[in-house]
Amino acid sequence: MAVVIPFESPSLSIGRLIDLVAPDMDRVNATILSRTGSEVTMIPEIANHLITSGGKRLRPMLTLAMARLMGYAGDGHVKLAAAVEFMHTATLLHDDVVDESEMRRGRLAARMVWGNEASVLVGDFLLGQAFKMMVEVGSLRALEILSTAAAIIAEGEVMQLAAAKNTATTEDEYLSVIRGKTAELFAAACEVGPALGSRPKDEQSACRSFGMNLGIAFQLVTTRSTTAARPRSSARMLVTTSVRARSPCLWCYLTAAAPRVSASSGGARWRTAMSPTPISNRRSR
Amino acid sequence: MAVVIPFESPSLSIGRLIDLVAPDMDRVNATILSRTGSEVTMIPEIANHLITSGGKRLRPMLTLAMARLMGYAGDGHVKLAAAVEFMHTATLLHDDVVDESEMRRGRLAARMVWGNEASVLVGDFLLGQAFKMMVEVGSLRALEILSTAAAIIAEGEVMQLAAAKNTATTEDEYLSVIRGKTAELFAAACEVGPALGSRPKDEQSACRSFGMNLGIAFQLVTTRSTTAARPRSSARMLVTTSVRARSPCLWCYLTAAAPRVSASSGGARWRTAMSPTPISNRRSR
Repeated sequence: MAVVIPFESPSLSIGRLIDLVAPDMDRVNATILSRTGSEVTMIPEIANHLITSGGKRLRPMLTLAMARLMGYAGDGHVKLAAAVEFMHTATLLHDDVVDESEMRRGRLAARMVWGNEASVLVGDFLLGQAFKMMVEVGSLRALEILSTAAAIIAEGEVMQLAAAKNTATTEDEYLSVIRGKTAELFAAACEVGPALGSRPKDEQSACRSFGMNLGIAFQLVTTRSTTAARPRSSARMLVTTSVRARSPCLWCYLTAAAPRVSASSGGARWRTAMSPTPISNRRSR
Repeated sequence: MAVVIPFESPSLSIGRLIDLVAPDMDRVNATILSRTGSEVTMIPEIANHLITSGGKRLRPMLTLAMARLMGYAGDGHVKLAAAVEFMHTATLLHDDVVDESEMRRGRLAARMVWGNEASVLVGDFLLGQAFKMMVEVGSLRALEILSTAAAIIAEGEVMQLAAAKNTATTEDEYLSVIRGKTAELFAAACEVGPALGSRPKDEQSACRSFGMNLGIAFQLVTTRSTTAARPRSSARMLVTTSVRARSPCLWCYLTAAAPRVSASSGGARWRTAMSPTPISNRRSR
């Protein structure tokens, strides 16, 4: 169950979250900068091309806020937050190769500048650096949460690949995809805060649940925004060349013309056909 | 310094290593099989396509052997060995995308069957699973060694990308590449054995050094074998289309017609030109 709160409410703006974690976020940004360093110059070039391109750093902010909420007084949350951002950046680099994307955050995708090969390998480097930072923090529970998340995120991405070729993707399957590919990292980013402070399991679960639901909502809202911004002709082309269209059932959430769901124990199967409604399931910034 | 021992000597065959670790290796194989499991069927299909295709499992064997050598009596070496093999498999999947390889271990590369996208993502899944297994073992030192290796391996691969476009690659740079992309995992696979048993740092370093040198030799020998097996016409074409030729200085190691090295503090710079001698720098099985 949930209460719907309009995002427009000034008192509930993200600004308060930004202000709350600002001092810690400066340390996270410094950590991110220092940990992309390498004598192999292509690595900092590619990593910083993406990292400095205007992402909101929402996931690391959640780690910092949850650690503070749970009364954690150490330093580990800074490295864990940087690790979470590196995991996110690595998946964006790999996503753009998988999706053959040309743009990311309003500028050329790294693969368009340095090539697919470099994007894959620098993503791998960032994943390695993320795990190094987690190990330095020394919390096995945080390591457990984030390594599990890494496997689930990749699983969600592969699931999406399979779903993209299946016009009969169910609502349950679609939700599984976005839980895996997007919401899992939100959930893990929130859960490591209390885990770091060795808080009780129920508090860890509550934080995880908050992150999971926020992540699902975030992906839906982002997809809706991307969809609305896309020119209709381009959207039509996308759908016509249905090979690249993802999650046929998604538009059912996003438009008034959604077909009815026939609920069953196996999940709701959409009587769907490719629609002129634009489809985009791109991972958010 | 090293003593050169002919591989042909029966008393020094790899058979003794295989026999030594056989019971543990059965457990590693069972772990590998169970940890590629996923409801997303493409994941076990791709992972097992590669894992069951005749790799020698040399890296996990080294982990098992070193753990036994150092008197480790627990169970953690089995999961660490499986994690090492998963890291290796993930890099092979990503390598084949980066190198646009069509074959791997005598059969079609996974990317030729399931596509580049799936190969990238299943590689990510295996990396996540590898870290999950390491966390389950619970040795922060082993985690430190293997997470550092993950970053160094990717760094070596990016370095190779840059070197491939530079016909003036030095011997030092070439050795840095193969240390990173191949020998680092051998070194880490050996080092985690004593680390798991909390053996002294000098013993960990000795095992690491053994693995590093074995890995460098292994890459050179593998490259030489691949080179010898390649038809001369195909080799000539490879070199003529020099865009895809890797590490121009490599053939200097492998042929009698190597140019002289002018040693200097900055490393030996080869007066190299593209040669009709075949070049291959593919990661070994």
